Order: sequence, then C-alpha cells, then structure tokens
Amino acid sequence: MNDDIRRILLRVAYDGTAYHGFALLKDDSETIEGHLEEALGSLHGEPVCVIGTSRTDSGVHALGNAVVFDTASSIPAENFPDAINTRLPSDIRVRSAMEVSSDFHPRHTDTIKTYRYAIDNERIADPLRSRYFMHVGYKLDTDRMNEAASPLVGEHDFKSFCSVHTQAKTTVRHITGIKVERNDTEIYITVKGYGFLYNMVRIIAGTLIEAGRGKLDAGDVSRILQAADRSANPAPTAEAKGLTLMDIDFLSLGPA
Amino acid sequence: MNDDIRRILLRVAYDGTAYHGFALLKDDSETIEGHLEEALGSLHGEPVCVIGTSRTDSGVHALGNAVVFDTASSIPAENFPDAINTRLPSDIRVRSAMEVSSDFHPRHTDTIKTYRYAIDNERIADPLRSRYFMHVGYKLDTDRMNEAASPLVGEHDFKSFCSVHTQAKTTVRHITGIKVERNDTEIYITVKGYGFLYNMVRIIAGTLIEAGRGKLDAGDVSRILQAADRSANPAPTAEAKGLTLMDIDFLSLGPA
Repeated sequence: MNDDIRRILLRVAYDGTAYHGFALLKDDSETIEGHLEEALGSLHGEPVCVIGTSRTDSGVHALGNAVVFDTASSIPAENFPDAINTRLPSDIRVRSAMEVSSDFHPRHTDTIKTYRYAIDNERIADPLRSRYFMHVGYKLDTDRMNEAASPLVGEHDFKSFCSVHTQAKTTVRHITGIKVERNDTEIYITVKGYGFLYNMVRIIAGTLIEAGRGKLDAGDVSRILQAADRSANPAPTAEAKGLTLMDIDFLSLGPA
Repeated sequence: MNDDIRRILLRVAYDGTAYHGFALLKDDSETIEGHLEEALGSLHGEPVCVIGTSRTDSGVHALGNAVVFDTASSIPAENFPDAINTRLPSDIRVRSAMEVSSDFHPRHTDTIKTYRYAIDNERIADPLRSRYFMHVGYKLDTDRMNEAASPLVGEHDFKSFCSVHTQAKTTVRHITGIKVERNDTEIYITVKGYGFLYNMVRIIAGTLIEAGRGKLDAGDVSRILQAADRSANPAPTAEAKGLTLMDIDFLSLGPA
C-alpha cells in the first residue's frame, strides 16, 4: 500500500434540476458524479474515480451529499474545495473536504441521512419556489400529516413505500424521525433514517400529502405498512424537485 | 364611455431569470408583459393591452408587481388568476385580481414599493440559492451595512445611485426605510420608497456590500450622496438575480 495515497471525503451540494441523478450506470447522460470526476481529473492531470454515498434520483437536490476519492497529490485537504469548484458548473459545489482513513468506504459504514421534502402550499404556485418545492394548492393539515407519519418511525418493512423497481435485498429500513413543519405557506417534511429504498422518501411525502388533505389517517398508514406491497398504497410518488438530501452523518466519523 | 368595460388590477409574481425584463420597447425579446398580453389575448379572443407598474430589469424577480387591463368580459374578477395562469409559462403567475376604477392608472398614482436584495454570504456559494441570491464569499458586517444605509433614508437626489443611462426628469427620490438582516448565511436588504431610479436598488445593494466588507462607512455614503454623480460612487451595481420586487402598495387603494 502506498503511504502517499490519501483518501479525501468531500461534502457536495447541487441543484439537481439539470442532471440525470447523482450517478447513472446505463448511458452517459450528465450526472453529478460525472462532473466531479471530470473536475478531479482536470485537477490531477489523470483520471480520478469517486465513490458516492447516496445516488440521488434525477432532479433531486443536495446540500450534504458526500463522496470520497484517492489522491497522490500534496494539496492540503482544506484546499480541495476551491480547486475543484473552479472546475465545476455553478450548480454543483464542493462545500468542504477532509482526509479519512484509506479503508473508509462511504457506502459500507453506518450513516444517518436527513432528507427534506418541500411543499409550496399556496393556492396559486409561487414561481420563485417552483424549482425546489412541489406545489399543492389545497391547504394541508400538518397536524394530520405528523400523526400519519408516526407509524413509519422505527424499523419496518417499507415495501409499500418503495418503487416496485427496487433491487434491494431487503426492504426493511429504520427511520429515526419524521417531522412536518409549516412556515406560513411553506411545508417541510424532514425524514431521518439509517438508509432509504428507491423513491422511499418521495413515496412517504406523497403519502403524508394524502394524509394532509384528509384522504388517509395514521390507521391507514399502519395498514399500508403491514401490507408490504406498493400497490396497497394509494399515494403517488411526490415530484423529485421537492426533495433535498440535507446531510449524511457518518457515525464512525463523529459530527460533521 | 362604455359602462360594461371594467379595469382589473392583477398582482403578478415571476422568476425573471429567463426574461428580458418586465417590458422592453426596442425589440421583441421575451418579456413578462408580452406573456401577460398573450395570455389575456387568448382568454378574450382579441388583443388586450396591459399597463404595467414597475418595469423590472432583465433578470430581476417579482412577488408583487402589478398591472391593469380593461375587459368587456363578464368573468368575475376573482376568477381571472386561474383563467390567466393556465395560459402562462410556469415561471409567471397571477396571484390575485381586483376591479379598480376605470381611471386608475398604476404609474400615475402614489405607491410605496418594497424591494428585497438577497445575498448568499457563505464562503462557498450554495447552488440551491444561486438563482435568487448574489454570492459574496467574504463575511459581511450587517451592523456596518445598516449604519451605511441610514444616510440614504429620506428625500434625496440619488444621482450617485442610479445608472448614468437614466432618462428620469429628476433624480430626487424618497426612500422610507432600509433594513439589513442576517439569517445565518443569508443576508436580506429590504428597501422601501415612493419610487426608484434605473438600477437604484441594485446600486444601493452594491454600496452596502462595500460597507459590509469595510470599504465604505456612513460618512462615505453621505459624501457620495452629496456628490450627485454616479462616478463618485466606487460601488458596482449588484447582480440583477439577487433582486425581487416584493410589493407595490397603491396608497389610494388601501392595504392590499
């Protein structure tokens, strides 16, 4: 093993509007990962691979995604953000960098992820929110939404809350908390957990929206959860644009 | 005069990013006014002219601009927003409509306009703010900014704070208040007044940013104001994208 190789963890923010998700295996559409690898390659003068933590969907935003890469350069960790940012489009920004141990793998370590789903709850959509909020024109009852969220907290089989296209080995996941808050006509659903299935937060948001308009209650959510079948959940998957990955807490690294 | 003709006042919000300002006299670039006239024309089946209140610059946003138009239709005023919005691009929205007297002219009546200038004051720009905030990476001192703003409040000749391309007959204007507030890494400059010159709020924002980084103080701002000459003001015009027209209070109409 080469002692001169360091592993660097980057915290990354992006506006996902223009991108086909964080990473994509199938074709060569523009991705966040692709731009990060291009910027790092330009900085190092040779190809650099990044290992991502969370493969956010097409159109989903992030303030706190994280990637690692290995470098033989002598650039101090704290200088990487500026050096990389000058090589990135303005809708992607590296917010910080730190050295981690060479065996740190961001997908094989315990994390708590925090997602936020934003709803524009004005009757007429606010055009200054439309890039980052899903518009719901009928008034939502956030007390009902919080009640309907409570059965989801804890360790459960979330098969009714994930895309039928999931390839996950198990659909059991552990949500540590869900909070629905209103600030005038903005509603924020904050979901924290040890990991999420494909589309899971957007389906939870869609379900809580149905609860907020009086179509579902906490009892219905319990029954949907127990059914362990996406088709048992009448709620649609909420739009990608309302979702932001706020933070990834790597438990082995201590507070960010 | 036709008694069946009603004058309708619309409150309009838009994301100015894609537009060449509210209205433009020279060519046929896309404007907010052009889209409103097209939507109203489609609704009425004949051309409809709108009279705008505030001709915001290219790239400037609005939550509370206002226009009037005349209609012979029997559509109740409160039904106009939905009827027009279905004919508008999603980055322009009519928020409300009310009938006003047929001799009401939005530019020939006293108004107090409220503008808000937004600054992203994180060292590394937040990509989720970049559409609506100007990024200033060095930390700004908002106490200094508030002090530097105080000489601008009241009735003054604002020639040092307007574009040299102004065609206004007089450069005397009356600012009723300026407030600079910080919310974590977001800074908002709110400016209220009876009317503004071309680029005036953006030059005030540029001047207060210079004050916030320690380059100018309240004494300098007083001297710049007295010079009545744009070239006496070293501050640049702040970027259009940070500016939003929040509200227009038509004093003759009472509270909105």
